[in-house]
Amino acid sequence: MDALTPEHSDKNSALGQRYGAAIPPTGPWNETIASLLQHRSVRGYKPDPVPAGTLETLIASAQSAATSSNMQWWSAIAVTDSAKKKALAEIAGGQKHIEECPLFIAWVADMTRNQRISDQEKVDFECMPWLETFMVACIDVALAAQNAVVAAESLGLSTVYIGAMRNDPVRVANLLGLPKQSFVVFGLCVGYATEKAAGEVKPRLPQGIVLHHERYDAGQKAALHQAYDAEMTKFSQRHELQAATWTQRVLNRLGPIKSMNGREKMRTALASLGFEIR
Amino acid sequence: MDALTPEHSDKNSALGQRYGAAIPPTGPWNETIASLLQHRSVRGYKPDPVPAGTLETLIASAQSAATSSNMQWWSAIAVTDSAKKKALAEIAGGQKHIEECPLFIAWVADMTRNQRISDQEKVDFECMPWLETFMVACIDVALAAQNAVVAAESLGLSTVYIGAMRNDPVRVANLLGLPKQSFVVFGLCVGYATEKAAGEVKPRLPQGIVLHHERYDAGQKAALHQAYDAEMTKFSQRHELQAATWTQRVLNRLGPIKSMNGREKMRTALASLGFEIR
Repeated sequence: MDALTPEHSDKNSALGQRYGAAIPPTGPWNETIASLLQHRSVRGYKPDPVPAGTLETLIASAQSAATSSNMQWWSAIAVTDSAKKKALAEIAGGQKHIEECPLFIAWVADMTRNQRISDQEKVDFECMPWLETFMVACIDVALAAQNAVVAAESLGLSTVYIGAMRNDPVRVANLLGLPKQSFVVFGLCVGYATEKAAGEVKPRLPQGIVLHHERYDAGQKAALHQAYDAEMTKFSQRHELQAATWTQRVLNRLGPIKSMNGREKMRTALASLGFEIR
Repeated sequence: MDALTPEHSDKNSALGQRYGAAIPPTGPWNETIASLLQHRSVRGYKPDPVPAGTLETLIASAQSAATSSNMQWWSAIAVTDSAKKKALAEIAGGQKHIEECPLFIAWVADMTRNQRISDQEKVDFECMPWLETFMVACIDVALAAQNAVVAAESLGLSTVYIGAMRNDPVRVANLLGLPKQSFVVFGLCVGYATEKAAGEVKPRLPQGIVLHHERYDAGQKAALHQAYDAEMTKFSQRHELQAATWTQRVLNRLGPIKSMNGREKMRTALASLGFEIR
């Protein structure tokens, strides 16, 4: 049968939005996958609150993600208070969507909870001060939060991660009353997108650059890179973004130290919050 | 209406498996969320291959996850070669499911690709050597991989993350031909679970311990902690796990340095792979 079924048409349209002309040879497809492909980070929210119980549904989804050795290295702090959201928005360099969104979730790498077991049971935790353990906590946070994002978007809600909580981890920790050995890895705005902010799916690098078989393929792939630069130029023109190509965005983002917004001091800030990261 | 609809019955059953008696007051529910709640890490696979195009569907899902400033800090290496899977299983301390699964995906924090732009355009990337940038790369990897897990499970496939790739990051990098400034954050087995390995949903901490409102609640919550220890004891008895309570598992996992399987040397290993992590 040559005619496209509605399902195939949706699939090709979703892949076209994500990859432009470089559509990968995907196989199985369903509604969950269609929802994943439709992801957009949204930076404008209506004031409407999320339905009762939504937060608990998101947290149940987050807790269902894998967690290394079931250590469950994270906590979530739901923030709905206007003054607190305003203070967080300010730390994040004035991102007004943090104020606008009805629900802001701070995702905490929480080593306090397990450390407390060490104290109570009087067993020295030799595994705590290492880079490995710190990384595992951050990864646990990310796996959990991503499940919450998937759940939120499946319910018609929009989200955006707020990495700028790391502009000043100490101030964020004070504002949210965090104990030592915990810090906010990132925030997440949750709510209903305004029409203007709903936006468009952002193209990603062709799979030929990202996916390798059996071994890393270190070939330069200049043609694929150029094709992606062209896709991002078209996307930038439609959205009036400053930088035209992906290459230019990478140069702007990673070149000058000022684009880190002070996050080069993270190690010192985390040390003062009780993280050794040996 | 008092009678439970099938949907509500499924929801309560899913929450009961995840939380035991401590069922949280969740709200909205749908098939995607039901699939998230059903997650289990599976350590036994049938030899059946995954359907054609599945890998590309999983990678399209992964690439649709949020990525910090669209830097796309990751690559994926699909491994299906038996000898290579065997070598990886050995590095992971003999985890035979790595050999068994038809598809193993190595998730790479890939700072090489962006670094190459620095070299080509002759612009110094001042933002590269910091803990912040390393963390962002690891978080990008985790968000992407979790989307792939969600997609795989929605298709009836099972998965398990393999953190033990970090037991020897240098050997893994050599085996997969990684360039400098890239390393395997974790692996992922993908395939069809054997009946024996399909297993049971693992209970998690009550939401009252994990979820906070407006501020971190540093109260001890001993009753909730004990209730979870009791749930995990029942779960352990059903599955003949060694440690009975969660508390005991935490003591075993974080107490003695030997339970890190050498990963306390990660920082040195990563330095030799070109990661400064200042």
